[in-house]
Amino acid sequence: MARVLTPQAEDFPRWYQDVVAKAQLAENGPVRGTMVIRPWAYGIWELLQRGLDDRIKASGARNAYFPLLIPESFLRREAEHVEGFSPELAVVTFGGGKELAEPAVVRPTSETIINASLARWISSYRDLPFKVNQWANVVRWELRPRLFLRTSEFLWQEGHTAHATREEAHAYALGILEDAYAATIELDLAIPVWRGRKTEREKFAGAVVSWSCEGLMRDGKALQMGTSHELGQNFAHAFDIAYTDDRGTLQRPWQTSWGASTRLLGATIMVHGDDRGLRLPPRVAPVQVAVLVARAGEGVIERAERLVDDLVQAGIRAELDPHTDVSVGRRIVDWELRGVPVRVELGPRDIAAGSAPVALRARDEKTAHTLDGLARAIPALLQAEQEELLRQATTLRDRLTSRARTIQDAIEQARAGAVRVPWAALGTDGEGRLLEHGISVRCLVREGEPPDDPDVDGVEAIVARAY
Amino acid sequence: MARVLTPQAEDFPRWYQDVVAKAQLAENGPVRGTMVIRPWAYGIWELLQRGLDDRIKASGARNAYFPLLIPESFLRREAEHVEGFSPELAVVTFGGGKELAEPAVVRPTSETIINASLARWISSYRDLPFKVNQWANVVRWELRPRLFLRTSEFLWQEGHTAHATREEAHAYALGILEDAYAATIELDLAIPVWRGRKTEREKFAGAVVSWSCEGLMRDGKALQMGTSHELGQNFAHAFDIAYTDDRGTLQRPWQTSWGASTRLLGATIMVHGDDRGLRLPPRVAPVQVAVLVARAGEGVIERAERLVDDLVQAGIRAELDPHTDVSVGRRIVDWELRGVPVRVELGPRDIAAGSAPVALRARDEKTAHTLDGLARAIPALLQAEQEELLRQATTLRDRLTSRARTIQDAIEQARAGAVRVPWAALGTDGEGRLLEHGISVRCLVREGEPPDDPDVDGVEAIVARAY
Repeated sequence: MARVLTPQAEDFPRWYQDVVAKAQLAENGPVRGTMVIRPWAYGIWELLQRGLDDRIKASGARNAYFPLLIPESFLRREAEHVEGFSPELAVVTFGGGKELAEPAVVRPTSETIINASLARWISSYRDLPFKVNQWANVVRWELRPRLFLRTSEFLWQEGHTAHATREEAHAYALGILEDAYAATIELDLAIPVWRGRKTEREKFAGAVVSWSCEGLMRDGKALQMGTSHELGQNFAHAFDIAYTDDRGTLQRPWQTSWGASTRLLGATIMVHGDDRGLRLPPRVAPVQVAVLVARAGEGVIERAERLVDDLVQAGIRAELDPHTDVSVGRRIVDWELRGVPVRVELGPRDIAAGSAPVALRARDEKTAHTLDGLARAIPALLQAEQEELLRQATTLRDRLTSRARTIQDAIEQARAGAVRVPWAALGTDGEGRLLEHGISVRCLVREGEPPDDPDVDGVEAIVARAY
Repeated sequence: MARVLTPQAEDFPRWYQDVVAKAQLAENGPVRGTMVIRPWAYGIWELLQRGLDDRIKASGARNAYFPLLIPESFLRREAEHVEGFSPELAVVTFGGGKELAEPAVVRPTSETIINASLARWISSYRDLPFKVNQWANVVRWELRPRLFLRTSEFLWQEGHTAHATREEAHAYALGILEDAYAATIELDLAIPVWRGRKTEREKFAGAVVSWSCEGLMRDGKALQMGTSHELGQNFAHAFDIAYTDDRGTLQRPWQTSWGASTRLLGATIMVHGDDRGLRLPPRVAPVQVAVLVARAGEGVIERAERLVDDLVQAGIRAELDPHTDVSVGRRIVDWELRGVPVRVELGPRDIAAGSAPVALRARDEKTAHTLDGLARAIPALLQAEQEELLRQATTLRDRLTSRARTIQDAIEQARAGAVRVPWAALGTDGEGRLLEHGISVRCLVREGEPPDDPDVDGVEAIVARAY
């Protein structure tokens, strides 16, 4: 059989391109660096988004929508902030058939326009904490685009909060990291992540502290999968956000911001995919169970339809594949390519025997199940597939992660994956040396937790090449 | 008590501005014509969107995402289409710090870029019908913006389908009009709508036939609330979309497109709102039940919290208002302003008596309910409120709609509301005469249905001033 994808071991970037194209996930848009997200990938995004949105709402934030176009002058209000962005901006200079008096920037992030609103909305301690989130598209010009990972336009959410105290802002920023991002990534996407603190060099421009979730891809490169920032009072000063406390004194709030994007789709592909294609965690699989009519025959279609109906009734995303005019082998290749977790194959002999082969994508097993009890058995199979993917991804990450005590060792070992190095042995100078070799400090961790203080005993840097 | 809003009878546009500002629904963005959708309005949008999205998916369409930026040359491919848009375009001329070789347009709609994708995705009869939908922001420069109704940027969905036959495209376009738009607007937003056919003059540029849902606002002006178009093979020719049929012959598909936007929020405000503020249909109310601690006292907070918990357990969106440091009168004004359907007021005497006053926003009634059975009684109250709003809106629409047999009468009567005129008495010339008086044909209907042929007996034009 002709191979469908370039094998990962042969050329991982090529494998990625192949799977994105052949599983019909995305393609390049006509303007350089932009992306068309095709229905299959968008279906994954919708499920991921629903889970993350529920968790964001559980943290007390409400969604809102802020304008796409931002006056150029807004971006200059927060100097450090604009410095980080200006080469990436897309600028609208014509509107309504005329040249604009002031150019408008297509938002690279909504930090400035949201803070301008917060300045109007927050005036009393009663307004705090204020928690708002936005799901939107943003544009950051990319010269070397890569679908899902680095595109000139991408979809994301950005949350912004204002609190009465620094402690509360700190706790909220860490809460979002754990309860929204890490939970969504581990429980829904089945990807293990390190939660850590960014170094001064790697933190978001304008933040006091940045925190992140970092995943490790199958090729040993890291990917940042969600960040949360303590902004201190930087934006409150720049945008003149102030409130009267309960004693009548004017105060500045302490703020946070946090975001995650369609990069999460890239991570899902690169952590779980294999040489046959995607492998989707059931929680975010647009189709969880494919029921194939393997061969036509009396009663086969009807039995397959009944199975799909039973599954849909039970809240499972099941789809019928009745296309017996295409060979069953070719259809199996296609369902595997798309990463559907469970596949049932039904033919006349299965109906006669009252049992059917059930193929599990993550376990890579095919076993016969009694046809009558199948709909009831599927939820447990899906749950097992979900857990299996997380287990495999964790095993792989552990295998791709080593420990080093010197900078030289870290540089060597980072060719193969992530390296844990004592931060005390590395420091800002060591970080600079790693960067010369294309290796960055992804985050600082201490006993699996994000450390409040990077300069205490036991803090490790997770270093790796990164997307 | 100081009045909160300008009364509708005094100045309806001013009332609208007041309620949008004071119920914290939206405000102007810094770039002319753009809009900040605040959390309360965005919460309504999310609920509305969820219902509409479910119905769109039930029609077989799947969501996808297409780029924001479109090469200027794309818009020239479909000449009639671009003619309708060019003065409204926002144009990006700088990207990544350089002037772009080809300017990029911020999408005013995604017709062109989606059809460019369909040309790649559709090649065989097996690919049909192809049904895709997108939720996105679009930009059309507005010189006289009005929040939700006419803004330079708005949120919408646009669906695009391709079918093997004209008949199938026709049936699908009408199906979306009824089963997605009319159903969402009537069942969720509680707004009665006319479903009709647009005249040649009013149809979408590039469509063969346009259909729409039209609502009537409290001031007697109409608002288009969702449109569905049969595109014929216009875009298939312009974008070279073709497929091989089951006999191996190359064919062009027949297409549809359809959209609805954040204008629906404007309609919800203008159909249901009264002099005290919004009145939200329970199905799209972010808070369906507000439980007020009217006066503090022993056990009151605890009982109020328990009621909220019971309601939330039952799947009802309930919120506690424990702010006894603000007068209960002021809080009631605020909950009414925001349009919350059901309000429960709890004080020590209510707890002692085992009953509580329950205020219904749409019925404008306050009655005592047994406290213990209240959580169980609420779903029926919400359902009754939902029906009451539709009933009131239908009564009002009927009162604001008259019949005329001559153009002159129609012009007179349209000052007060919508007028039904036989299309045979009006025709394209009559339509032109109405337009001179600021009155347009909203749609053509026949016995409550959208007519396939506008030139048969019994077709009526619904004419009105419009937003």
